[in-house]
Amino acid sequence: MKPLQSVDYQTLHHRSGPALAARLACRGGALRGSTAGIAPGYVQGNLAILPQNLATDFLRFCQLNPKPCPLIGLSDPGDPHLPALGEDLDIRTDLAGYRVWRDGEIVDEPDDVLTWWRDDLVAFVLGCSFSFEEALAAEEIPLRHVEEGVRVPMYRTNIDCTPAGRFAGKLVVSMRPLQPADAIRAVQITSRFPAVHGAPVHIGLPQAIGIVDVARPDYGDAVTVRDDELPVFWACGVTPQSVIETVKPPFAITHQPGSMLVTDIPNRRLAAF
Amino acid sequence: MKPLQSVDYQTLHHRSGPALAARLACRGGALRGSTAGIAPGYVQGNLAILPQNLATDFLRFCQLNPKPCPLIGLSDPGDPHLPALGEDLDIRTDLAGYRVWRDGEIVDEPDDVLTWWRDDLVAFVLGCSFSFEEALAAEEIPLRHVEEGVRVPMYRTNIDCTPAGRFAGKLVVSMRPLQPADAIRAVQITSRFPAVHGAPVHIGLPQAIGIVDVARPDYGDAVTVRDDELPVFWACGVTPQSVIETVKPPFAITHQPGSMLVTDIPNRRLAAF
Repeated sequence: MKPLQSVDYQTLHHRSGPALAARLACRGGALRGSTAGIAPGYVQGNLAILPQNLATDFLRFCQLNPKPCPLIGLSDPGDPHLPALGEDLDIRTDLAGYRVWRDGEIVDEPDDVLTWWRDDLVAFVLGCSFSFEEALAAEEIPLRHVEEGVRVPMYRTNIDCTPAGRFAGKLVVSMRPLQPADAIRAVQITSRFPAVHGAPVHIGLPQAIGIVDVARPDYGDAVTVRDDELPVFWACGVTPQSVIETVKPPFAITHQPGSMLVTDIPNRRLAAF
Repeated sequence: MKPLQSVDYQTLHHRSGPALAARLACRGGALRGSTAGIAPGYVQGNLAILPQNLATDFLRFCQLNPKPCPLIGLSDPGDPHLPALGEDLDIRTDLAGYRVWRDGEIVDEPDDVLTWWRDDLVAFVLGCSFSFEEALAAEEIPLRHVEEGVRVPMYRTNIDCTPAGRFAGKLVVSMRPLQPADAIRAVQITSRFPAVHGAPVHIGLPQAIGIVDVARPDYGDAVTVRDDELPVFWACGVTPQSVIETVKPPFAITHQPGSMLVTDIPNRRLAAF
């Protein structure tokens, strides 16, 4: 994709709202890499694209595992547009980075998937922790990976997701270290957002969920955990990528971790109460 | 007080509802000791009675410290009845045990306080953890002190309550050991009940709030904490008794720990959402 020549991100922002502007910036090549901090206030999503003959099983997998896989959008087979998630949204071009998978291996990491698109593909968009992190930050809960300028640390646990058809695998979690009173407040705040992973799944005691060393995450970057803090673990939208590595479907497309789909849905609309 | 001769607890229960029956059983001498498990479904309360010249300061203390001191009832000076909390309720006779305090020392532990009553006394009734424990048990969160048949362990922390007038002192907390997932669920459940201490104030890391050894509580009994559990700490209604010991008001009356006021208020009415 060529970068936009005459329309920069700021101009788009004014013309079309920040979420559409971000998608057009991805489409035009002006935005690559992490979408953290892009279009504040708008829901971002994890992406999993599968052939139609696997879509029913994966839909059941999401339904059975709503904490790692909270489904917020689903395309018609072969249709790259998801109008419920965003104006003029094209799932083939509007993310800042993709991964193409064959038999559980990454075979391409393109800027768009126009050449990989097929008429039988179904796109699944799953809620992402950026939404609840915004709610935490708004209540002055400190986020260590943001303070340290790195990606959130993520770990493959020993917790089995509930299997559905051929889809099965271990739960992936993200971790944020918090002082105990902040951890309690974080449970309250994130409980309001079940569509973006909701409440933590675990707190303290990393060994109890198969994490040998919090300083060695399986994905993302390590962060400092202080003596007066507990590691707090949330179900993570990277779980489907771990599942794809495990069950090795013939074909799949996902986002690049951190390069999320920016939607037109306001974060506040996801609050359960 | 003489026990009722011809009306037993069961008969009263049928005639008047379980909460009034419990109060009449206390009044008649048929019920002494712990009220745990009595009149299930009804709010029980901690009691603090103070002379009117201290009542305004203590009311402010409760208002400034709503987690340990959630005020659910307040009498008119000299009036032993609190009709908002229960039919025919007499605060002088309707608890299963009292403590009378002079200058911060216990000077009597009577079955009723009819002879200690004065026209200037104001009764404060504060929410109690029995209500939220019922909500936890209903969702199958295990309560170790109930399993082990002992009183909940309570600790004087290093956390200062917000002072008001002459009232000041350390926060007292109760502790329930829970597996991490149950601890998270317990935060959600008890957050719905701010009038009975609400969400925990601390989780894990007892030393961080000045508890040197969870096996040596300051009040109540020790319980087993297993390797796969975190100690979870809630603000406790024994805090006012710790405050009375600290600030030594000339006169006060409290309940015996565990011998609570049984009210006519259904627990479910306290749910915030």
